[in-house]
Amino acid sequence: MSKTIGVIIDFLNETYERQINEAAARCGYTVRYFPSSAAAVGNVDDCEILYGHCSKKVIASAKSLKWYCCCWAGVDHFCDDAIYCDPDCLLTNSAGAYGVTICEHLIMTCLMLLRRQMEYTEVIREGGWRVLPGGIRSLYGSRITVLGTGDIGTQFARRAHAFLPARIVGVRRSAKPGDPAFDEIRTITELDAVLPQTDLLVMALPSTAETAGVLSRERMALLPQGAYVVNVGRGTAVDQEALIDALNAGHLAGAALDVVVPEPLPADHPLRTAKNLLLTPHVAGNMTLGHTCTRNVEMFCEDLENYAAGRPLRHLVDRRKGY
Amino acid sequence: MSKTIGVIIDFLNETYERQINEAAARCGYTVRYFPSSAAAVGNVDDCEILYGHCSKKVIASAKSLKWYCCCWAGVDHFCDDAIYCDPDCLLTNSAGAYGVTICEHLIMTCLMLLRRQMEYTEVIREGGWRVLPGGIRSLYGSRITVLGTGDIGTQFARRAHAFLPARIVGVRRSAKPGDPAFDEIRTITELDAVLPQTDLLVMALPSTAETAGVLSRERMALLPQGAYVVNVGRGTAVDQEALIDALNAGHLAGAALDVVVPEPLPADHPLRTAKNLLLTPHVAGNMTLGHTCTRNVEMFCEDLENYAAGRPLRHLVDRRKGY
Repeated sequence: MSKTIGVIIDFLNETYERQINEAAARCGYTVRYFPSSAAAVGNVDDCEILYGHCSKKVIASAKSLKWYCCCWAGVDHFCDDAIYCDPDCLLTNSAGAYGVTICEHLIMTCLMLLRRQMEYTEVIREGGWRVLPGGIRSLYGSRITVLGTGDIGTQFARRAHAFLPARIVGVRRSAKPGDPAFDEIRTITELDAVLPQTDLLVMALPSTAETAGVLSRERMALLPQGAYVVNVGRGTAVDQEALIDALNAGHLAGAALDVVVPEPLPADHPLRTAKNLLLTPHVAGNMTLGHTCTRNVEMFCEDLENYAAGRPLRHLVDRRKGY
Repeated sequence: MSKTIGVIIDFLNETYERQINEAAARCGYTVRYFPSSAAAVGNVDDCEILYGHCSKKVIASAKSLKWYCCCWAGVDHFCDDAIYCDPDCLLTNSAGAYGVTICEHLIMTCLMLLRRQMEYTEVIREGGWRVLPGGIRSLYGSRITVLGTGDIGTQFARRAHAFLPARIVGVRRSAKPGDPAFDEIRTITELDAVLPQTDLLVMALPSTAETAGVLSRERMALLPQGAYVVNVGRGTAVDQEALIDALNAGHLAGAALDVVVPEPLPADHPLRTAKNLLLTPHVAGNMTLGHTCTRNVEMFCEDLENYAAGRPLRHLVDRRKGY
């Protein structure tokens, strides 16, 4: 079998290319770069490894593929064994590259909601200069629940911790101890008991069968009047119709969604006019921050050394679990 | 002399009234509440102490005044001895009540600038859903300079520290050691040497003769291409014309001003159309966060006990220095 790596990353630059080439050479591989998935389809027969944001079509056409290293953290589109020629093909993700950028997005959007920044943007836009009646709120003293205690949830909790919130609770599948930034770890089965004690619900979950619709209409009703919801995981986790109702009725004081269903969100979608909803176009974790790209390439090169040495891959995805 | 305290605070509620009354009773004072400065003028002859946001007119009319506790942090309008009947009248400010709310504003606006949130607001407003070319930046790895290492600058540095910036330098009058969140403390005389090493300049200075115009056109030019400026101190600290030029020419990548000259800012002022300028209407430290009001009243009651016991006042202002 030929020892070839196919790379499809749109953030390629000379530094990254040199890093990848050097790691590949150390491991006995040669690298072929493709400008896009479209250019790669039909041309990756010899690739034992693919790295980057490959389309399903590219992966399905890679007859020799033994390992696909996806440069995204969310790999829900790549968990079906049927898309691989070899059902034992390894899949790794790039969870760990996005914690820094997504947690900065999270802190920013939480503060924008609490401080009513969308309304203040309007005051300035209209040529005004005035204090809005009704007050603002702070991270300081807030009860924060983080749904998903992976890299993103943990990095967020560490930053939020410095703002001296009243309490940060992490909610995860198992009650294993989490980062010290969490005051407490609860399991997902206890979520209904945690929600009534939550001022700010931060959702950073992968898209799996288990997480779809996890913030249902019933659970939204368990949040206290005036709570906030922020989601950077997958749009499928939130009942969007219920969210629109909860915002417009004032049960929730605000929400921030970076992920929605569908994407791109149509210009006339009712989410766009929901009250106090801060929308961003799935940019919390995109590849426009240099640090994210650098970590992404580093993580691939580390796992390439593991792969070549026959060691376990650090970022291996359990396709049945979905992350 | 009668032992009377006059209180003019527009955030008064039953809890605060009870706290103030109890502290006053312990110290042998009675309290008179006024709904506004206008209502107080001519009616405060008997007040030995005034607390709140009093107009200069109220203070000038307070013939028995020995101590004015201003509920703002910035007291530049109250530093002229001539406004007091007794030139030895004590002045305290409420610096320390605003650190929490202003530092949350600072982190929010820094992240909004770095992540190009004003542009993303426009993308969504226009019904779009797309990633902007050109990339974003992060607090992570940024070189931050904090001009003013008082309560606000220190609280900001502590929060910013959790985002793992490359380096946080505090700049102050004296090189006394600062909070451990500062990697380094420099004196204001060294500012010109610090500016070229600054990605993000955060200004939290009181308004004094020394700080007026501190960010001059020449100093702005010392900042590296693509730097950001954020000001929450006083508008007088920044050469606004130079700032507009630096933004529109692209020398600065963005700026956020919560304080400007004049306030309120006219609807047709050129600051309103400067490129990548995030304006907020002097709300970083207003009294709409419950915590700020609570600290404000606590601080007055603490100093009232000090005053009655003949101990030094903790928040005493040196009127010649201006803070």
